[in-house]
Amino acid sequence: MWSRIRSWFVPPDAHRSRLTKLISRASVEFTACMMFHFIGSISPTPWANGIALTVLVYYTAKISGAHLNPAVTLTFCLLGHTHPIDALMYWVAQVTGCAAGALWIAGLVPGLNMRNAPSGEFQGLSGCFTPAAALTPFQVFAWETVSTTCFIVPIFSVVWYTQHKNGYGNSGPLIVGLSLAANALACGRFTGASLNPARSLASPIVFQCPYPVYSYVLGELLGGILATLAVVPWYGISRSAWYR
Amino acid sequence: MWSRIRSWFVPPDAHRSRLTKLISRASVEFTACMMFHFIGSISPTPWANGIALTVLVYYTAKISGAHLNPAVTLTFCLLGHTHPIDALMYWVAQVTGCAAGALWIAGLVPGLNMRNAPSGEFQGLSGCFTPAAALTPFQVFAWETVSTTCFIVPIFSVVWYTQHKNGYGNSGPLIVGLSLAANALACGRFTGASLNPARSLASPIVFQCPYPVYSYVLGELLGGILATLAVVPWYGISRSAWYR
Amino acid sequence: MWSRIRSWFVPPDAHRSRLTKLISRASVEFTACMMFHFIGSISPTPWANGIALTVLVYYTAKISGAHLNPAVTLTFCLLGHTHPIDALMYWVAQVTGCAAGALWIAGLVPGLNMRNAPSGEFQGLSGCFTPAAALTPFQVFAWETVSTTCFIVPIFSVVWYTQHKNGYGNSGPLIVGLSLAANALACGRFTGASLNPARSLASPIVFQCPYPVYSYVLGELLGGILATLAVVPWYGISRSAWYR
Amino acid sequence: MWSRIRSWFVPPDAHRSRLTKLISRASVEFTACMMFHFIGSISPTPWANGIALTVLVYYTAKISGAHLNPAVTLTFCLLGHTHPIDALMYWVAQVTGCAAGALWIAGLVPGLNMRNAPSGEFQGLSGCFTPAAALTPFQVFAWETVSTTCFIVPIFSVVWYTQHKNGYGNSGPLIVGLSLAANALACGRFTGASLNPARSLASPIVFQCPYPVYSYVLGELLGGILATLAVVPWYGISRSAWYR
Ligand SMILES: [Ca+2]
Ligand SMILES: [Ca+2]
Ligand SMILES: [Ca+2]
Ligand SMILES: [Ca+2]
Repeated sequence: MWSRIRSWFVPPDAHRSRLTKLISRASVEFTACMMFHFIGSISPTPWANGIALTVLVYYTAKISGAHLNPAVTLTFCLLGHTHPIDALMYWVAQVTGCAAGALWIAGLVPGLNMRNAPSGEFQGLSGCFTPAAALTPFQVFAWETVSTTCFIVPIFSVVWYTQHKNGYGNSGPLIVGLSLAANALACGRFTGASLNPARSLASPIVFQCPYPVYSYVLGELLGGILATLAVVPWYGISRSAWYR
Repeated sequence: MWSRIRSWFVPPDAHRSRLTKLISRASVEFTACMMFHFIGSISPTPWANGIALTVLVYYTAKISGAHLNPAVTLTFCLLGHTHPIDALMYWVAQVTGCAAGALWIAGLVPGLNMRNAPSGEFQGLSGCFTPAAALTPFQVFAWETVSTTCFIVPIFSVVWYTQHKNGYGNSGPLIVGLSLAANALACGRFTGASLNPARSLASPIVFQCPYPVYSYVLGELLGGILATLAVVPWYGISRSAWYR
Repeated sequence: MWSRIRSWFVPPDAHRSRLTKLISRASVEFTACMMFHFIGSISPTPWANGIALTVLVYYTAKISGAHLNPAVTLTFCLLGHTHPIDALMYWVAQVTGCAAGALWIAGLVPGLNMRNAPSGEFQGLSGCFTPAAALTPFQVFAWETVSTTCFIVPIFSVVWYTQHKNGYGNSGPLIVGLSLAANALACGRFTGASLNPARSLASPIVFQCPYPVYSYVLGELLGGILATLAVVPWYGISRSAWYR
Repeated sequence: MWSRIRSWFVPPDAHRSRLTKLISRASVEFTACMMFHFIGSISPTPWANGIALTVLVYYTAKISGAHLNPAVTLTFCLLGHTHPIDALMYWVAQVTGCAAGALWIAGLVPGLNMRNAPSGEFQGLSGCFTPAAALTPFQVFAWETVSTTCFIVPIFSVVWYTQHKNGYGNSGPLIVGLSLAANALACGRFTGASLNPARSLASPIVFQCPYPVYSYVLGELLGGILATLAVVPWYGISRSAWYR
């Protein structure tokens, strides 16, 4: 047993096969997404969303790269930082992780139960996203696109400064959380501000959410694609892009 | 007298016996917990909780390791960072420190007096934790377990980055406070968000608090134990664990 | 095509003509100002203003110097850091960028349409600045002057610490955003707290805003000039000022 | 003229007499206190107080040590960091600086005029401190004492880490502001949370404030003295204390 415990001291990702490393990285994405969807859904303010992301980015940064969001993974894949196979594994881990967080909600919040529509005193904490009544599905799609792009662009700078050890790396996790908070404060009253396909999908898997998810998920993925437009002209793509 | 003052220049923990060092460390835990329970209890928002923890972690980090919470001490003990004897001393210092902070409340807040039930205009500032009416004691236990786990997991990363001087150490005290704020914002409306056995026990020692503490304290200690599950697979235990 | 992609790897501003570099820098000011006016206008709190600025300063700092505000550019020009020709290009990029952000608002917010006066449920999100009824135009001018000065003074320290790598450079983007948030919280109830000529001009270009912009823009530019008074005696001007 | 401008390039405090340096340092304390009392008084939330302090500490840290508060200067004097003559100059600069900030309030806020009692829509923004009705003058004294002590203790750690370049210096200005915010959130509903003799004295110099200042000022000075009790046992006094 002691030799097994001792093996845990091996620095992360050393002496491991590519598959083992990928499982380790995807598992930490699962764990952090589970906590993130739970905390983010039951909190009464977009600030909690932002700072929960900050601390979970801190937790996962050196293990998985702290994506915690399929749209972020898509941006990093297009920019050459994440191989498509890894990206797929991350997507699965992020969506199932957030769905596991929705199960915590079902277990812990009185009145919210699996397979039911949210009801009662705490129904607003279900993690289901519902847009403002004034918005058409296309406007929901457009808001999620624009806000996801604005959210991801500064995150890319974090990756760049961390890789180049060029001055601002230390504040990386804080910047990621503040970027989410700023855009969630702006977009919140329109769509509830998911900006994350895994979070959009998670609670509808567990509860009977009232609003369809496709406007959200498609908008967020397009937002991840458009974010590259504000990155490539100034930061370029990865020096060791998988498609080079 | 000057030679005595000069002796204070001795760098902390140098040229001292193990016992003197332990007393010094436990005393700073006492002092910081006293301030923490005082500020945290009389503040109207979970944010003050979080930032009070940040500044007090900053104050104590290099002296005691800035646990300020018996559940954190338990996690660090299980992960090999804190010897069980030190952990016991820390527990005593944390609980008595928070109780001393409750005495400050009794002395300073009009209407709150020792041995009485909190009453009057400021009764909500007593530091007693009372859960939402909808929750059973088991649900209180479960909420405190889950939220304490979510609170402690990113804190462990702070320890790891500090020890490995691996990029993010500088932002450590901020991350600890933000992790408390995020989880207190999420869990607050259910249990009041103690997430700390010393804080749960402190005000009931001084005031006649209406709700029993066992659901809180047991949940928080279990949360400290479960936090290891999200740490060990990726960060391992201490390289110099006391039980190796 | 690959060789073109490869050329993106060239580090920013290397192997480029002065004109190409200036276009690159002005373009990132345009992009960030577009996002900044959009997020800042549709957010319900000055905090979102501040943290949106923080993350966009992080995004643009090493490319354009992260001015994102013609008054800041004016201060830096007077202090010798920005050449007047570059300053003019930055001014054009900042005003047109913010106006492009106002176009996003026109496109995305129900009830806000180009060339119309803002109306309906979301009319407060138009990005038009309207002062408190009690204020004369001269008082609006004075408030914007004073608050812009207070906003810019600590920003200059960020530039100085970054150039001298003297201790605090890492926290630069955070300080810039916090300085905006502090002054926007203070000045907000009087003028709405623009503190930025590009933001003052942007929405009146796109919408029929009810209040004239001259008190705002002149006050902010004077604020940028006065900020030098609290900088020069202690920090001096640039070691390589363009006018030396 | 150019040679005069060039002389501004001389790094701060180099090639200057002790008197010139002291005037330079006291002047920056004056300037920052002026801005601090202005922003802090007209802001509707203790948060603006905290972040205004953060950015002004950033502005003054390497010039004057960023005291901006006579109680902080007193603590640093007792701990050997500030010579009593410098401390007196700082006290004068801090009180006159805050009073100058109160003059800005008189000039800019409709309804607040020099020598008058604050009145009208914005009378709460005068910078006069008024305690909760339930408190006796002695309780006001006690609250300001305790909260000033709690505020200053973590600030001392900032000085220590900065001097020893021991890990956390970068986050210094943020910690100072967060410490003020935490204690202002806690103490605010009781005394309005001045925690600063210069701020307590400033507005009564300019306006007819309704509540006498002695409970505030004496409490804050005692708080500065008591803060040394939580510093000396673990951090000691200055290695080059003026009284050694
Ligand atoms: Ca349930
Ligand atoms: Ca009492
Ligand atoms: Ca429209
Ligand atoms: Ca007046």
